Amino acid sequence: MSTLGITDGLVLRPDMRVERADVLVDREAGEILDVRPEIGRSADERLDASDALVAPGLVNAHTHAAMTLLRGYADDKPLESWLREDVWPAEAELTPDDIAAGTRLAALEMIRSGTTAFADMYFSEPRVADVVVESGLRARLGHGVVTVGKDEEAAWADVEESLTVADEVRGVSDRVETAFTPHSLTTVGEEYLREGVARARELGVPVHVHANETRHEVDPVVEERGVRPLEYAREVGLLEPGDFLAHCVHLDATEIDLLAETGASAVHCPASNMKLASGMAPVQRLLDAGVRVGLGTDGAASNNDLDLFGELRDAAMVGKLAAGDASAVAAGDAVRMATAGSADAIGLPGGRIEPGAAADCIVVGLDAAHLTPVHDPVSHLAYAATGSDVRHTVCDGRVLMRDREVLALDAPSVRAEAEERAAALVERAETA
Amino acid sequence: MSTLGITDGLVLRPDMRVERADVLVDREAGEILDVRPEIGRSADERLDASDALVAPGLVNAHTHAAMTLLRGYADDKPLESWLREDVWPAEAELTPDDIAAGTRLAALEMIRSGTTAFADMYFSEPRVADVVVESGLRARLGHGVVTVGKDEEAAWADVEESLTVADEVRGVSDRVETAFTPHSLTTVGEEYLREGVARARELGVPVHVHANETRHEVDPVVEERGVRPLEYAREVGLLEPGDFLAHCVHLDATEIDLLAETGASAVHCPASNMKLASGMAPVQRLLDAGVRVGLGTDGAASNNDLDLFGELRDAAMVGKLAAGDASAVAAGDAVRMATAGSADAIGLPGGRIEPGAAADCIVVGLDAAHLTPVHDPVSHLAYAATGSDVRHTVCDGRVLMRDREVLALDAPSVRAEAEERAAALVERAETA
Repeated sequence: MSTLGITDGLVLRPDMRVERADVLVDREAGEILDVRPEIGRSADERLDASDALVAPGLVNAHTHAAMTLLRGYADDKPLESWLREDVWPAEAELTPDDIAAGTRLAALEMIRSGTTAFADMYFSEPRVADVVVESGLRARLGHGVVTVGKDEEAAWADVEESLTVADEVRGVSDRVETAFTPHSLTTVGEEYLREGVARARELGVPVHVHANETRHEVDPVVEERGVRPLEYAREVGLLEPGDFLAHCVHLDATEIDLLAETGASAVHCPASNMKLASGMAPVQRLLDAGVRVGLGTDGAASNNDLDLFGELRDAAMVGKLAAGDASAVAAGDAVRMATAGSADAIGLPGGRIEPGAAADCIVVGLDAAHLTPVHDPVSHLAYAATGSDVRHTVCDGRVLMRDREVLALDAPSVRAEAEERAAALVERAETA
Repeated sequence: MSTLGITDGLVLRPDMRVERADVLVDREAGEILDVRPEIGRSADERLDASDALVAPGLVNAHTHAAMTLLRGYADDKPLESWLREDVWPAEAELTPDDIAAGTRLAALEMIRSGTTAFADMYFSEPRVADVVVESGLRARLGHGVVTVGKDEEAAWADVEESLTVADEVRGVSDRVETAFTPHSLTTVGEEYLREGVARARELGVPVHVHANETRHEVDPVVEERGVRPLEYAREVGLLEPGDFLAHCVHLDATEIDLLAETGASAVHCPASNMKLASGMAPVQRLLDAGVRVGLGTDGAASNNDLDLFGELRDAAMVGKLAAGDASAVAAGDAVRMATAGSADAIGLPGGRIEPGAAADCIVVGLDAAHLTPVHDPVSHLAYAATGSDVRHTVCDGRVLMRDREVLALDAPSVRAEAEERAAALVERAETA
């Protein structure tokens, strides 16, 4: 057995208590062996965690990784016109190589900011899977289906592609899982949803879908069908345990209960919901109802980064505003959401530092002016740390970043290729 | 003449356009001489800005710097109980040496995150002034007055102390200005407000005050006096040009007009307003009305950092939520608020990169994964950069940080002293 010792740090345990201990990892099994003082000193490989907090790797439960290429390309516009005028025309020009380059940039950014796993909904997902394997991260991947505006043949082909990706891509590595990913309840027609979801159940993959992000996704469903969107979702076969719904901003009490009863998860994306003025999700009410809540950045075009520390802070901040109560969505709640909450929501291992858990951990340096003094390390994770404070990143027992140097990816060439492809993409989109 | 050249960067101009140029600075006068390509190459001292953006130093228009000692000490509580149960008992134990140490930690954090000037409202301000001089920053300082709960003698003594500080501390350096700083319209009695403000006018110093932060500061004024708080403020002599009002969350249309007419400034503190669930300030409406708006972090206990990049992002994000409009408080508006808006609000030089302006500038590295690609550097400042991306900080023509190393302060000893004093302070407060 080959071991990794994360030594001399404060360790964040699943109950949000912090204790001084080492973390000992089985590198081959990718598993945490033990958490105890001094236990890591004689490990084969060591990571220094002095003046630092050892926390679970953060899990980004909803993103479109390759959209890093469009970071800052179009801001300060409402969702509908932002999609129609800027994002979709640019996406129409994306090549599989662009998507690989954008995902590689996203992987670099995620590793540098302490994210070890993510759920992706985008295109060319076999290429995305290759980048996940190369980078050392974990992911649950899905090909996003849109049927509105397509003829029947093209719509069915899109559903088929998502199912094929869900079936075939999950085999490429132990770190890659898949999902069937209809874009949303209003951009995929009912017959495609019913058939796609039924086939996903046969394949044994969950469903990842946008839901109730804006009022424009709620009101038409209520008007046409006379039921709330999540009631409709249930009717077409969605909301099984394992399914996860991104955004969930505009929910009524019935829908919150429905999530709690069915065991489907909500993925909160507070930054995107602010930036697109979509609204504030009722996060404290979801937590009170016992709904499993994860945290996602959404794509970099509506955030504009993939730093889950910012999302953590936003979740705690907006949670208080939405509830009108400064005690809502406390620091520990936000941290739990970004770790175990997200990992459980998207059905990947990780999110906890305890013996037997997946060895997905980060070391967050506390030796910075903005993290001094340390009255409460959990408060610092939620309110004061950023991705730049992450010293080391470990996923599946393997060190992906050591002392801020990413090992699996060559940062300068990843950045250069992304910069070049982004410029060419925008030029194509604007002359198309 | 001795010169500083900031070379090979993209320069952010006051109209929010970006151009490739050097910035040439007269180090003794602390003034920008010229902004032109290649003009900095033969300067006496050079700062490299390649792959970076040269922006005005950020200005924190409302803080309580020494509260860094209480960062993360008490979170997730409403304003009133947070003040009464946690903050005030701890503050009662603060010594002048504690305040100096906390302010020094704040100065270190500000320099590292690209802030070059701030407005402070706290205690032991002569000691704060010493730290400002030592650190190389600029500031407008004021002793915070509270008269409720005090007998008449103690209340008048507090007013006198604020006036004495305002008169005497402004002489200590060209970089230090002062203000008369009643805590708020509800924590300072009417007679003290009237007298203090009148005396401030004689001294020629502006007034810095909290206003309309929570409904608890609005409703009692309306009930007792039959006017809105800012109408009352006007009656007691406040709202002259130069005065600045922190928070301004709960304003009605009359009050917005009053700010616009009088030329008094609003200081937006979005993070603190979220964390304490105080509400969302109507920032786009203030901007539309022509009110000068600055940006402040408030104290580190309600934020929990002094990083104005976070505040910039929050201003743009919450501005959209408050307006229900994704085009509200655009990236450029937020950046302007944190630079020229704040500098003008608190009446200090800076906030613009142009010939003749104060040489307060920062160099923000764009060579990071989370800032790739660069479609729009202003978008990156607002939505993706953090204080950790600041490479160099210059104030008054002097380099305060070079390549992330703070020159005027010894970071390890500043952090160690703050950590020690914070621990002792909390122990005193909890056993008192």
